[in-house]
Amino acid sequence: MAVIAILGYGTVGSGVVEVMRSNKELIESKAEQPVNIKYVLDLRDFPGDPVQDIITHNFDDILNDDQVELVVEVMGGINPAYSFVKSALLSGKSVCTSNKELVAAHGAELMRIAKEKNVNFLFEASVGGGIPIIRPINRSITSDRIEAVTGILNGTTNYMLTKMDAEGIDYDEVLKDAQEKGYAERDPAADVEGHDACRKIAILASLATEKTVSYEDIYTEGITNISTTDMLYAKMLGGSVKLLGKAGFENGRVWARVAPAVVLANNPLSMVNDVFNAILLKGNMLGDVMFYGRGAGKLPTASAVVSDIVDAVRHKNVNLGIKWSEDKQELMDIDDVNVSKLVRVEYSDKDKAAACVKRLFGTENILETEEAFDEFAFVTDCAKESDINDRLEGLLNCDGINGILNTIRMEG
Amino acid sequence: MAVIAILGYGTVGSGVVEVMRSNKELIESKAEQPVNIKYVLDLRDFPGDPVQDIITHNFDDILNDDQVELVVEVMGGINPAYSFVKSALLSGKSVCTSNKELVAAHGAELMRIAKEKNVNFLFEASVGGGIPIIRPINRSITSDRIEAVTGILNGTTNYMLTKMDAEGIDYDEVLKDAQEKGYAERDPAADVEGHDACRKIAILASLATEKTVSYEDIYTEGITNISTTDMLYAKMLGGSVKLLGKAGFENGRVWARVAPAVVLANNPLSMVNDVFNAILLKGNMLGDVMFYGRGAGKLPTASAVVSDIVDAVRHKNVNLGIKWSEDKQELMDIDDVNVSKLVRVEYSDKDKAAACVKRLFGTENILETEEAFDEFAFVTDCAKESDINDRLEGLLNCDGINGILNTIRMEG
Repeated sequence: MAVIAILGYGTVGSGVVEVMRSNKELIESKAEQPVNIKYVLDLRDFPGDPVQDIITHNFDDILNDDQVELVVEVMGGINPAYSFVKSALLSGKSVCTSNKELVAAHGAELMRIAKEKNVNFLFEASVGGGIPIIRPINRSITSDRIEAVTGILNGTTNYMLTKMDAEGIDYDEVLKDAQEKGYAERDPAADVEGHDACRKIAILASLATEKTVSYEDIYTEGITNISTTDMLYAKMLGGSVKLLGKAGFENGRVWARVAPAVVLANNPLSMVNDVFNAILLKGNMLGDVMFYGRGAGKLPTASAVVSDIVDAVRHKNVNLGIKWSEDKQELMDIDDVNVSKLVRVEYSDKDKAAACVKRLFGTENILETEEAFDEFAFVTDCAKESDINDRLEGLLNCDGINGILNTIRMEG
Repeated sequence: MAVIAILGYGTVGSGVVEVMRSNKELIESKAEQPVNIKYVLDLRDFPGDPVQDIITHNFDDILNDDQVELVVEVMGGINPAYSFVKSALLSGKSVCTSNKELVAAHGAELMRIAKEKNVNFLFEASVGGGIPIIRPINRSITSDRIEAVTGILNGTTNYMLTKMDAEGIDYDEVLKDAQEKGYAERDPAADVEGHDACRKIAILASLATEKTVSYEDIYTEGITNISTTDMLYAKMLGGSVKLLGKAGFENGRVWARVAPAVVLANNPLSMVNDVFNAILLKGNMLGDVMFYGRGAGKLPTASAVVSDIVDAVRHKNVNLGIKWSEDKQELMDIDDVNVSKLVRVEYSDKDKAAACVKRLFGTENILETEEAFDEFAFVTDCAKESDINDRLEGLLNCDGINGILNTIRMEG
């Protein structure tokens, strides 16, 4: 029998209890033994709740109980999760977590300790909610050099962008709707400014490089600047605007960024709508593979945590050997990465503005919409971002051009 | 060091050699040891080819070589693959295979022998080509009761249907094109009549039930009956026609079928085009997760085979415990499964025909296209297939109706 403890009885923690109860027989068959939740750590009491008798307010009860072989950390945040997880591992207990902040900030160290102690530190739920992605990267994509990882990694922003696109509703109103539905926090910064997606692409890029890609090094741009007019142009191009976390790996060089992009229809990420997430991997032999599902939500996230519980219980005292070292992976300057951009230009003289675009970007393809006046859009060639930006600076000095209204990267 | 032998130097076999050469360092790092191909079994010689010196024509060379710990079967077909694989397992060698026919026909027995001998029988490439699906079902979806598995499992037919849909080209012409491109065999029956997809859904359903779902028991209907007119109606409904392998698991009852279906736009399978495959799993906690990628092709398939090689080499003498017993899983009669169908009716009197449809199916929603005369289509309610079919029989006796031109199941 495996004895486990759960740290945190919030949304994910109560989901873990629910999944374990609902699918008890199946889970214990996969784990090849009974799995018993002995403790749930939370500051609160839960009178009348099934866990009321196993609630503890003191982490030491768990740490000092040698029966507990596995600690499930679903509190979120760095403190006190980090110190709890670290001391659990140091005392020879495996840890499963859904905590992307913890994994992005301390994953490599915690994995090293797990390895030293011959236990496991697993984190399937930290990226893509219920979507199996961490285990497939570690165990299935073992014969390919990964050339790129691109993901729709945040359900809240994808819901918002989908709704803006489908219904033509402005950003502010869609944000309010997402907050009312409980998809967005009262302070939505972590989602809409891309910080959440940034943690997740840092984790995926670290697994792909087997080194530590620091989330602080990743260029991150959110969706606060995206308007329904941007989406009209994207639609004219046969695409839609998505917030992408992306990392590229070429010739030993690595780059990563989080930013909105116009995803064209031939890219399978273009059809990932609403709160769904997806991760597209490009392997040098495999080509494209995509993993799609619910990126958040109580039960899907809990399901992923419980799949880690099953794995950890089956591999008691066998470290699964996830490769992710504490060595820092240097990233390319994002200015040196090739991009193509959709550019919206405000003009005072359309012909002069178009001539300038032609001169600087070599294109005569101008997009116009009846719903926006005194502006057009165009798509740049693919070149180093610094070169594109230099030429955009040049545009601002052109006769007939009042300004640049927005630029959004293209994703083919 | 792991010493391996490859049975068959056709498309997949030569792909395996290519993947192992191209990504040698990475693969050996994941396998945590060098991996050496000592033999390639083929009836032919390959002078000038990198494998010319390790070609053997005699399987006993491999079987009797105790150095060989792993046999990679990529010959296809049941004979002699079955006897080779069985004797390799019996002599204590692990086996990896891409052979769906072998796995569907003898998987449970071969897995039992592998378990008895404490080796592994792995078959990631047998379904979905390069898409990781077998390992995710066995190792990742371990906390969910699987309620349904639905897949676009055959790249050839998906290519054909995509082209018919996009370009309005008739079946016969598209088949010719697929044959010229090498996607379809000269005798295309295995693909277009659904036998290939049937083997694959049998494998997936067996893994989901942990018993043997016999492919012979699965109702199988191909795409030979699908016309561009069917596709016009599907498009009017916002969907497209796909060949689906599907298995349902509810209240201990199991059913499976292979048949074309109108997949509606809100289903992520609707966007799986060309030669791509995808498998959609519905878990009782997870909801929908989808795995998407290249379902065939030399390198993607070989990549999946090599991921099995890595797994087998890492788990020498540790059976991975895939649950799939030789107990037969009985299937529900497909007539008892609920479906909704798109029905095309040829009429002599439209008003009378529509009145009859209304009387028998309760709908006044009639679809018409300018490109087909004297016919309309409608969508039935969702009911037992036998009940739907009974009422379709009834239609044939109605005044004003000449006949039923086609029926295609709906997939929401």
